[in-house]
Formats: sequence, C-alpha cells, structure tokens
Amino acid sequence: MEILFKPIGIVHSPFQKKEEIETEKFAHPQGFDSIEGELEIFREYEAGLKDTEGFSHLIVIFAFHESEGYRLHTKPFLDDTLRGLFSTRSPHRPNPIGLTVVKVIKRKGNILHVQGIDMIEGTPILDIKPYTPRDQKISIKYGWLEDKMKKK
Amino acid sequence: MEILFKPIGIVHSPFQKKEEIETEKFAHPQGFDSIEGELEIFREYEAGLKDTEGFSHLIVIFAFHESEGYRLHTKPFLDDTLRGLFSTRSPHRPNPIGLTVVKVIKRKGNILHVQGIDMIEGTPILDIKPYTPRDQKISIKYGWLEDKMKKK
Repeated sequence: MEILFKPIGIVHSPFQKKEEIETEKFAHPQGFDSIEGELEIFREYEAGLKDTEGFSHLIVIFAFHESEGYRLHTKPFLDDTLRGLFSTRSPHRPNPIGLTVVKVIKRKGNILHVQGIDMIEGTPILDIKPYTPRDQKISIKYGWLEDKMKKK
Repeated sequence: MEILFKPIGIVHSPFQKKEEIETEKFAHPQGFDSIEGELEIFREYEAGLKDTEGFSHLIVIFAFHESEGYRLHTKPFLDDTLRGLFSTRSPHRPNPIGLTVVKVIKRKGNILHVQGIDMIEGTPILDIKPYTPRDQKISIKYGWLEDKMKKK
C-alpha cells in the first residue's frame, strides 16, 4: 500500500540551507519563536484558508524534501546517545514528514505570515491544521529530552 | 511533484467504522482521553520505538484512508457554518493526513498501548513523533471553535 501526496504550498524561510539552522535552538521551547517566514498556499487552495486567521497557532505538516534514508537508532541533534528514531524529531524517517506549530501573524490572500519557522526555503507544505485545545497537553514527560531541553 | 508514503503500522481501535465515532466528543478537549487502543508498528520498524516509552505523549500521523474528495469550504462536525477547510480538522483534505496526540500507557515490543484514540480500526500509521515542550502552546486563540469547544 502506497499513498501519494502532493504539495499544497511552499515555505518561505530565512534559512536557505539546512546547515543554517542552528540545532541548539531546538533545546529551547521558544528557540524558533522569533523566526518569521511565510506559508505560500497555492492559489487553487486559497479558499481553504478562510477562518485560519482566527487561530493563534497552526500546525504545518510538510515534507523533509532534502532528507534521504534513515536509521532506526539515531543520534539526535541534542544528544550523543543513540535513540530510537520515533523518540526523535530527526528529518531522516521512513516517511520524511515534518510537523511544526507556528504562530499566525496575519494572512494576506494565499500567504500566511507566521512566526516559529524551523524549515528551509522551498519546503513543500502538505497540510495546514488549526491548533486546538485537544493538542494542548499541559503535564508532559519527555524522556531523554528532559535533560537536554530547558524548561518553559 | 508527488511524494510517496507507505504505512509503518496500523491503528487498533474500538471504532470499527467512522460512524461509530461520536463527533460531539470533539467538543471536549478530553473527549477521547479514555479511549484506549494500540499502535501496531510493523516489525521492520520496531527498533525505532526504543525510548518512546519515556514520553508521556506521542504524535501519531496517519492517513485518513477512507476519506475521498474535499471541499475548500466545509461544515465542520461542531458547526453549521461553512468554514475554510484549513481551519478545520475535517478528514476530507487535499492530502488526507490526520494527526492525533495520544498518551502512552506502555510499550510491548512493536505494540504501543495508548489512550486518546479517535481513529478507526485499520488506520494506516505514517509516523510517530515525540510530543515535546515545543508543541505545547499554552496561551492560544482558536477562532470559530471557541464557542463550540468547552474550555479545559
């Protein structure tokens, strides 16, 4: 069984290349909060953006389009121990799907101006979803990351 | 440009059919919290589950495999006004990708026992990611949903 997806838009980012993304930023829950960018949704899907500006945060689902291959045990950005891939946010995954919650600044037609960009220029967007109270998990444990990531 | 994904596992759910999922449950942030199920990750990916049990919550990315077609303006479960598709969590999307944050109860080999299941039996899993403080947005606005969804 295979499932075919096609981009509904692309990310415009201040990061032109993967190497420009300082991975230490991932150690801070707000590390990317000030990074602004645009989500350009192709015109054919623009009508679907109605009402998104009422939400403070959106979930962007995208393709790690420059990622190739994966290892089931991997050294995450923030650690030097091998970790199970599905306990990391590594871009190298069986299905190279990425997920970032961004803050909406404003919408202008088919362009969403947002904060919290941690993707590179040209990243293909697969979906946009509203971030709702169901996505808010207040009391969480976060395993190996607890020692590596500063508390909010 | 098209991107090909293949399932890494399947969801085992008490819901056999879409019609069994009471959509009013979506009006409560904890509406599905008590619904238990299993994420069966195929054996070839099992090693990637190492360390996931250290996290209280995981993000499950899956395919809405029974969803066909979409409309850019749609009536969400919880509303009777037409809303922009990307401001809803409708399963009918240009790329029928779903996302649910589940609570980990325990892992047994390639099976994750979880709470918070809102998918149907047999749903193809595309990815599992750890839920981290970067995904916690504490102060949020949620547009048209604010009148429809009870506060936490």
